[in-house]
Amino acid sequence: MTRTIVASATREIVIGFDQPFCVIGERINPTGRKKLAAEIVAGNFETVKKDALEQAACGATMLDVNAGVTAVDPNATEPALLVQTLEIVQGLVDLPLSIDSSVTAAIEAALKVAKGRPLVNSVTGEEEKLEAILPLVKKYNVPVVAISNDETGISMDPDVRFAVAKKIVERAADHGIKAEDVVVDPLVMPIGALGDAGRQVFRLLRRLREELKVNTTCGLSNISFGLPHRHGINAGFIPMVIGAGMTSAIMNPTRPQEMEAVRAANVLNGTDENCTTWIMTYRDHKPAEAGATAAAAAPQPSAGGRRGGREARRAALGLAPGGEGTTS
Amino acid sequence: MTRTIVASATREIVIGFDQPFCVIGERINPTGRKKLAAEIVAGNFETVKKDALEQAACGATMLDVNAGVTAVDPNATEPALLVQTLEIVQGLVDLPLSIDSSVTAAIEAALKVAKGRPLVNSVTGEEEKLEAILPLVKKYNVPVVAISNDETGISMDPDVRFAVAKKIVERAADHGIKAEDVVVDPLVMPIGALGDAGRQVFRLLRRLREELKVNTTCGLSNISFGLPHRHGINAGFIPMVIGAGMTSAIMNPTRPQEMEAVRAANVLNGTDENCTTWIMTYRDHKPAEAGATAAAAAPQPSAGGRRGGREARRAALGLAPGGEGTTS
Repeated sequence: MTRTIVASATREIVIGFDQPFCVIGERINPTGRKKLAAEIVAGNFETVKKDALEQAACGATMLDVNAGVTAVDPNATEPALLVQTLEIVQGLVDLPLSIDSSVTAAIEAALKVAKGRPLVNSVTGEEEKLEAILPLVKKYNVPVVAISNDETGISMDPDVRFAVAKKIVERAADHGIKAEDVVVDPLVMPIGALGDAGRQVFRLLRRLREELKVNTTCGLSNISFGLPHRHGINAGFIPMVIGAGMTSAIMNPTRPQEMEAVRAANVLNGTDENCTTWIMTYRDHKPAEAGATAAAAAPQPSAGGRRGGREARRAALGLAPGGEGTTS
Repeated sequence: MTRTIVASATREIVIGFDQPFCVIGERINPTGRKKLAAEIVAGNFETVKKDALEQAACGATMLDVNAGVTAVDPNATEPALLVQTLEIVQGLVDLPLSIDSSVTAAIEAALKVAKGRPLVNSVTGEEEKLEAILPLVKKYNVPVVAISNDETGISMDPDVRFAVAKKIVERAADHGIKAEDVVVDPLVMPIGALGDAGRQVFRLLRRLREELKVNTTCGLSNISFGLPHRHGINAGFIPMVIGAGMTSAIMNPTRPQEMEAVRAANVLNGTDENCTTWIMTYRDHKPAEAGATAAAAAPQPSAGGRRGGREARRAALGLAPGGEGTTS
């Protein structure tokens, strides 16, 4: 059984097929967030702190940390900024972190100060990247996200993306890195632009699990790019990728609809033992708060119908109280 | 490619792996609805009419019709009641119907008056049922729901349930009924009582699709029986069963959260061409109406993060307007 171990100073998390889905909080990232970028450049980390605490409170399993502010010379400035951001986050929350940078020197600087066992985000199939990142991954004995593109870009052919993933896993092995420490991102295309994007990724996930036996991740909300009501598409995508074998995703844990989909899929995938997290999270759920949308032609007075009802819903399963989400 | 054809007087629907998920509205059923049962016995069909119109308006693909009011002698009373109920429903809405009864005489009486090509719900693996129902299915050239239990009851072993389904498909073939006219219900157990219930059904669905090549259905909300916030579990289950190959379900189409999950899964499964139904349904969706729950630690001001945003969400895909749901 493939087990990718990540850890903070005191907390160890296993990413694996038999584990609750690993939610990697994506918020600490200035890309496309001008205000956050300006704050980080000015040495103001209030939004970083707020995002760290909020994502942890909402049930993130781990947090991605990116300090890639636009700069004239990122190689000169990003290492120090990433170290500063990472140290602030790991001083504030006890979750494992993902070190997210396209600057190799920034990744190494962050690896030097990171507590526990962080995830490196990321390597690709590009020769230069492979030879820059894999030695660091080996040296610091950490897992790495492997993105399935190479010098030729992102292939629209899922077989090519699988081949790139396979090449990275094999190259990692050449460096003495086990497959369980390579978390493959098969790359998710927007379904609005490519109608086959969902089925492509479901097939890829099964192959990655069965043939390469690796854990997997993705930038989840890519799937809904360009569509209205993106949270609805994301929330439908989550159970489908979990059912197809995906074990983590970089996503926004402060979105209740997406997190509800993660928790439901954990129950249905058998990784929320005795439904404890579900019951503790939703035992006081009021039906009136549920996801009503404009699509409903009329309000629905009763929920159960012939297959159960309010009484059934209240039937206690006799479980002891338990905490949210992560498994250590 | 397996194609189960059902039809009303004027509308034909295909149930199949490459078709939008077939939502069979479950509401017209007095089981567990004392008020509805009393109304039907008294010859009052106002709730039946309301349920028919409401389910159609909410996007049901077809409607299940059950008139099984508790009676001293159902064999004597149910045929006439089912015929009456069916005729009222088919006079009101133009959706294919599912004739739902445990009384063989009621099924035959309804088959005599049903327009188009209704679905018979159901046969089981019990000898007596097989020999009562399959000749009717052949005689009227209609498809049938095959429930995977037999004289020994419902097996907790999914391999036994598969074997029962296989037996029904083979027996149907003996009667000259094609596999495409057998829609197998693999039986869904409550996940709160059986932690493996989800994985069992996902495996069964793949086998039913790949080995028996049949369409499938289930009583969907069984999965969440006994748990709090059942709609959240149901809405997570729908994309997972669709991803595993299920092609229809008997469910409540007036529940917006479940129907949103169906529509999202159709998009992701590639059966909502150009995302037309999704876009038409949700183009005016207000994020404030989305499924906020008690689980959110804090409200979330912005939706997009680095992977898109409000601007992206509004990007038009340039599609022509289209209608809701069914494919004819």
